Amino acid sequence: MLVIGIDPGTQATGFGLIESRERGEPLFVDGGVISPRRARDPIERRVQAVYEGLRRVLSDYSPEVAAVEGMFMAGNIKAAQRLGEVRGVIFLALAEAEIPIMEYSPLAVKKAVVGYGQATKDQVQEMVIRRLGLPAPAGNHRGPNPAPGGKDRGRKIPSDLSDALAVALCHVQTWKLQNLIAKS
Amino acid sequence: MLVIGIDPGTQATGFGLIESRERGEPLFVDGGVISPRRARDPIERRVQAVYEGLRRVLSDYSPEVAAVEGMFMAGNIKAAQRLGEVRGVIFLALAEAEIPIMEYSPLAVKKAVVGYGQATKDQVQEMVIRRLGLPAPAGNHRGPNPAPGGKDRGRKIPSDLSDALAVALCHVQTWKLQNLIAKS
Repeated sequence: MLVIGIDPGTQATGFGLIESRERGEPLFVDGGVISPRRARDPIERRVQAVYEGLRRVLSDYSPEVAAVEGMFMAGNIKAAQRLGEVRGVIFLALAEAEIPIMEYSPLAVKKAVVGYGQATKDQVQEMVIRRLGLPAPAGNHRGPNPAPGGKDRGRKIPSDLSDALAVALCHVQTWKLQNLIAKS
Repeated sequence: MLVIGIDPGTQATGFGLIESRERGEPLFVDGGVISPRRARDPIERRVQAVYEGLRRVLSDYSPEVAAVEGMFMAGNIKAAQRLGEVRGVIFLALAEAEIPIMEYSPLAVKKAVVGYGQATKDQVQEMVIRRLGLPAPAGNHRGPNPAPGGKDRGRKIPSDLSDALAVALCHVQTWKLQNLIAKS
């Protein structure tokens, strides 16, 4: 089963594709970050960049299911609405490609991948790299922006990518667990 | 100048097209409400319905500019994000059609159309009907849902439609005022 994990963001949207296997950890297939052409582009250009970038990825890989990092509960109304705008076009691209959507909260993702809900971004990243056996640097950065700047200084891969891979891992794990329960 | 006014909503998105004139009030051209097939459809189906409905309207009329009811500042994080999801696909459809977007806050719309920011929905509707010389009922309801139910009981036209026409009127008025200032 090919799973695409998506971490929607107002400035950059991470995506990560993993193939789950009967035994052992899933295989890393591809991943990257979709960014607007310019960080200061108006919202309509930014959502268009996410929509078009994601459509290309979906058409290249035809994943069977999408795991999307879910509702963002902290922060302010404006940030939530801005994030919603990006989520809207992600949902649209997935609906058009007829890919079922599973949403996982940040808490559920951290619990599944690291083992506890208060894990830091660095801990999530380290676990993703270890579980997928990624050689750093992994993934590619879609869009003409250079490699991620400040917030990823010192990180092996962009955090938007590791968050996307984490939500995909969370889905595979949840799905395997549900299968185990169904069989028992 | 043909203006489309858009009132994004999580359950129903109103749109109204008006043609501004050199003198006098603008002319009503068309308007309606885009609803999901079923109110309980998952979010991806709902954003797809809004996107496809709006694309049809844009392709039928090719408006020159879009006036969108802006940021929703009250309410909770979840509602803001849900509304953002709908706004995202509206922005995408407008960007794809290369229609410039102007955003107006609910306060600005009420001030422009009724004369004060604390106007009620009924007052906005009454003023829209009067200024556009609408015979009630006006507009059409896109999508298979029946005419609006509870919240529009006793209203002459759906409030999503009158809100959309109000934001279009607000744009025409703002634009005329800016032209006047530029000429003086």
